Amino acid sequence: MNNFEFYCPTRIVFGKGSISKLPEFIDKSKKILVTYGGGSIKKNGVYDQVKKALEGYNYLEFGGIEPNPKYETLMQAVDIVKREGIDFLLSVGGGSTLDGTKFIAAASKYEGQKDAYDYFMKDQNPVTEALPLADVITLPATGSEMNNGAVISRISTNEKLAFQWEALYPSFSIIDPEVTYSLPEKQTINGIVDTFVHVMEQFCTYDVNSPLQDDWALAILRTLIKEAPKVLAKPDDYEARANIFWCATCGLNYWISLGVPQDWATHMIGHELTAFYGIDHGQSLAIVEPRLLRNQKVAKSKKLAKLAREVFCINEPVDLKAADIAIDKIEAFFNSIGMKTRLSDYDIDASEAASKIRDRFRERNTVLGEKGVINADTAYDIILAS
Amino acid sequence: MNNFEFYCPTRIVFGKGSISKLPEFIDKSKKILVTYGGGSIKKNGVYDQVKKALEGYNYLEFGGIEPNPKYETLMQAVDIVKREGIDFLLSVGGGSTLDGTKFIAAASKYEGQKDAYDYFMKDQNPVTEALPLADVITLPATGSEMNNGAVISRISTNEKLAFQWEALYPSFSIIDPEVTYSLPEKQTINGIVDTFVHVMEQFCTYDVNSPLQDDWALAILRTLIKEAPKVLAKPDDYEARANIFWCATCGLNYWISLGVPQDWATHMIGHELTAFYGIDHGQSLAIVEPRLLRNQKVAKSKKLAKLAREVFCINEPVDLKAADIAIDKIEAFFNSIGMKTRLSDYDIDASEAASKIRDRFRERNTVLGEKGVINADTAYDIILAS
Repeated sequence: MNNFEFYCPTRIVFGKGSISKLPEFIDKSKKILVTYGGGSIKKNGVYDQVKKALEGYNYLEFGGIEPNPKYETLMQAVDIVKREGIDFLLSVGGGSTLDGTKFIAAASKYEGQKDAYDYFMKDQNPVTEALPLADVITLPATGSEMNNGAVISRISTNEKLAFQWEALYPSFSIIDPEVTYSLPEKQTINGIVDTFVHVMEQFCTYDVNSPLQDDWALAILRTLIKEAPKVLAKPDDYEARANIFWCATCGLNYWISLGVPQDWATHMIGHELTAFYGIDHGQSLAIVEPRLLRNQKVAKSKKLAKLAREVFCINEPVDLKAADIAIDKIEAFFNSIGMKTRLSDYDIDASEAASKIRDRFRERNTVLGEKGVINADTAYDIILAS
Repeated sequence: MNNFEFYCPTRIVFGKGSISKLPEFIDKSKKILVTYGGGSIKKNGVYDQVKKALEGYNYLEFGGIEPNPKYETLMQAVDIVKREGIDFLLSVGGGSTLDGTKFIAAASKYEGQKDAYDYFMKDQNPVTEALPLADVITLPATGSEMNNGAVISRISTNEKLAFQWEALYPSFSIIDPEVTYSLPEKQTINGIVDTFVHVMEQFCTYDVNSPLQDDWALAILRTLIKEAPKVLAKPDDYEARANIFWCATCGLNYWISLGVPQDWATHMIGHELTAFYGIDHGQSLAIVEPRLLRNQKVAKSKKLAKLAREVFCINEPVDLKAADIAIDKIEAFFNSIGMKTRLSDYDIDASEAASKIRDRFRERNTVLGEKGVINADTAYDIILAS
C-alpha cells in the first residue's frame, strides 16, 4: 500500500425524507443562492420539497446549469453572488449542477485579473477560499456529493477540465434515493456506467498489495451488476435505488483509492469525446473503457484477472485469458443495461475523432494512465478501435 | 438500507515516515499537552520521532494513561490542562491513550458541579465543546483514530462506560505502520481480534438489503484472516502491518455500519469481564463472541451463513448449518493466531462471572443486541457457556 492522506468533512444525510432535514444544517442567518439545472427538479417534486424546507430563509435562485456545466453560464451566477451578497450556495440537482456550484464557490471569492477559467482550470491555481456550499443530490453518478472535485467546460474553446481542492468539499449532502424514481432511464444508465468506470479507474491499475481497497472496489462492481437490472425493471424499487446511489457516492469519495495508484485515462479521453461531439459523459466512458482496457491489457492483466474471478466468477487460471474475458464481460454488462459502446452508435467517425484527440493531446503534451504510458498516439489507437 | 447520517472530519495521514509531518497539522501558536501511556513509546522510537517533529513547539507531557484508561488518572491531566492553559491535546500511543485523551478533551471544558464521569459517562450528557485533539496512533485495534467514541473506566466503582460525540473526533490521526513492528505479540493479537469483533458487531445482525456494506465488512474479515499470520510470522512485514492497521481503522470508522443495524452485545458483556477480572479487551471479546453467536444463532443465521460462504468459502446450502460452521471457524481463527477463547484459560470461574454480570445488568436494566433481546439472563447463559 502506498502512503496516503485522506480528509473529507462532508456530512452525508442519506435516506427517505431527508430533504426536510435541510434546516438542521443551514444557519438561518445565511443568504443562500439555490442553484439548479434545466428544471427537472420542478417536475419531480424536489424543488417543492426544497422550497418547503427553506421556508423562512433568505434565498435567491439560479437555474439553467447545463450537463457538462459551462464556464459562461456559471459566471452569471458569480455576478449574482457578488451583487447580492450571497454567503451560502445550495446545489439542487445532479453532479453537473453541483460541479458548477463548486466552480461558482471558488470564482465568487476570486478577484484576480485573469479570467477565472484560465486561473483555476488551466493554470490550476489553488482554491484557498471558497463560498460554503452544500447540496441536495438527485443523480447517482459523479460522486461529487462526497468529493472536492469538479469538471467544468468552456464553450468558446471546446475545453473540459477538472479541478480539486479541499475548500470545495460540500459541507453537507442530502441523498434521498426516492428522488431518482423519476429519472429518465438514460440518466440512470449513464450514472451506473459512470460509477462503474470510476471504480475501474481506481482499481484497475497494478498491484500494490492493497487487498482491502481492491476488495471494496470489487464490492461496488458486484453491487452495481446485481442492482442495476432491478432499478431498470422497477424504477421505484427503493432498496435497489438506495444501493445504486450509495455505490455512486462511494465510487468517488476516495475510500477505494487510498494508497493505491489511479488511472483516469478513460475519463480524460472521454472528456474530449464529450467536448468535441457533445455525447453524454457516461456514453463516452462506455465507448472508451473497453478499448482502453484492451490496449492496456498486459499492464493491467493482474487486476483484470482478479476482476474476472471475483466479480464475474470466471474460473480461468491464466491471467491474460481471464483479462480478455473480463473486458468482454464489462462491455456485455454495459450493453445489457442498454448502454451502447461504439462511436458508430452515435454516427461519429472514429478516424476523425481519433485525429482530433491526438492533435489536442499533442498540443498539450498529454500523458495519461497510472504509469504515464498513454500518450497522444495511444489515445489515437484507442479511439480508432472504438 | 436504513436511513443514516455520517460525518467524520478527521484527517488521516497514513504511511511510512508520517510522524515527521506533524508540524503540517498543528499551529505553532498552540500550547500542547502530549499524552501517552506506560512508556512503550520511549522504547520503540516513537517518542523520539514526536519530540523531533515538535521542535519549536510549546508542549508539556502527561504519561501513565493505562490500558482501559481510568477516570482517576485522566482527571490529573485535566488539572494540568486547566492550570497550564493547554489548548491542544496530542495523544501518542494506542487506543486507550487516545480514548483517555478524548475524555480529557471533554472534561477540560466542563465546569459543572457533578463529577465529570457521572456527567458524561453515566448520564450521557452531550459533549458540546471539547479541546481540539489529534493523535499518533501506535496500535491497530480500537479504530479510535477515526471515530468519535471512547471507553473510560472508573476504579472506584468497577465501571467501564462509553461515550460518543462529534466534538470528540481527532482533528488528524497519524498512522505509521512501522511503529507496530515492535509491538508485543499479545498486543498484535488483541488488536486483530478487536478489529474482527468490531466488524462482527456491525455486520452480524439481520439483513436490511445492504449488499455494499455487507461486502465491505466481509472484506475486512477476509483481509484480517489473510494478513494476520504474516505479521505474526514476520513482525516487520510492512505491507502486512499496513493492511492490518488500515483494517483496524476501517473496522470502526463507521463506513461499514452506515444504514445497517448494529449489535455491540459482545463488547458490552466483554467490558464487564474486563471491569471485574482485568483481562484484556481483546481477550474478553474472544471469549464472549463465539458463545454469543451460538446463543443468537437463529436470529443471526442469514448473516452467519453469508460469512461462512463468502469468507470461509464453505459450500453449505442450509443457513443454520453454515452458521454453525462459521462460528467454529471464527473460534478456530482466534485460536490459530494464539488467542484463547475460554474463561478457564484465565482461571476465571464461569459461574461466578455469569452471576456477577447478571446482577449488574439486572441492576441497570441492561438490554443488548440489535433487537434488544439479550438481557441479564441471556448474558448469564452466554458467560456460563464460556
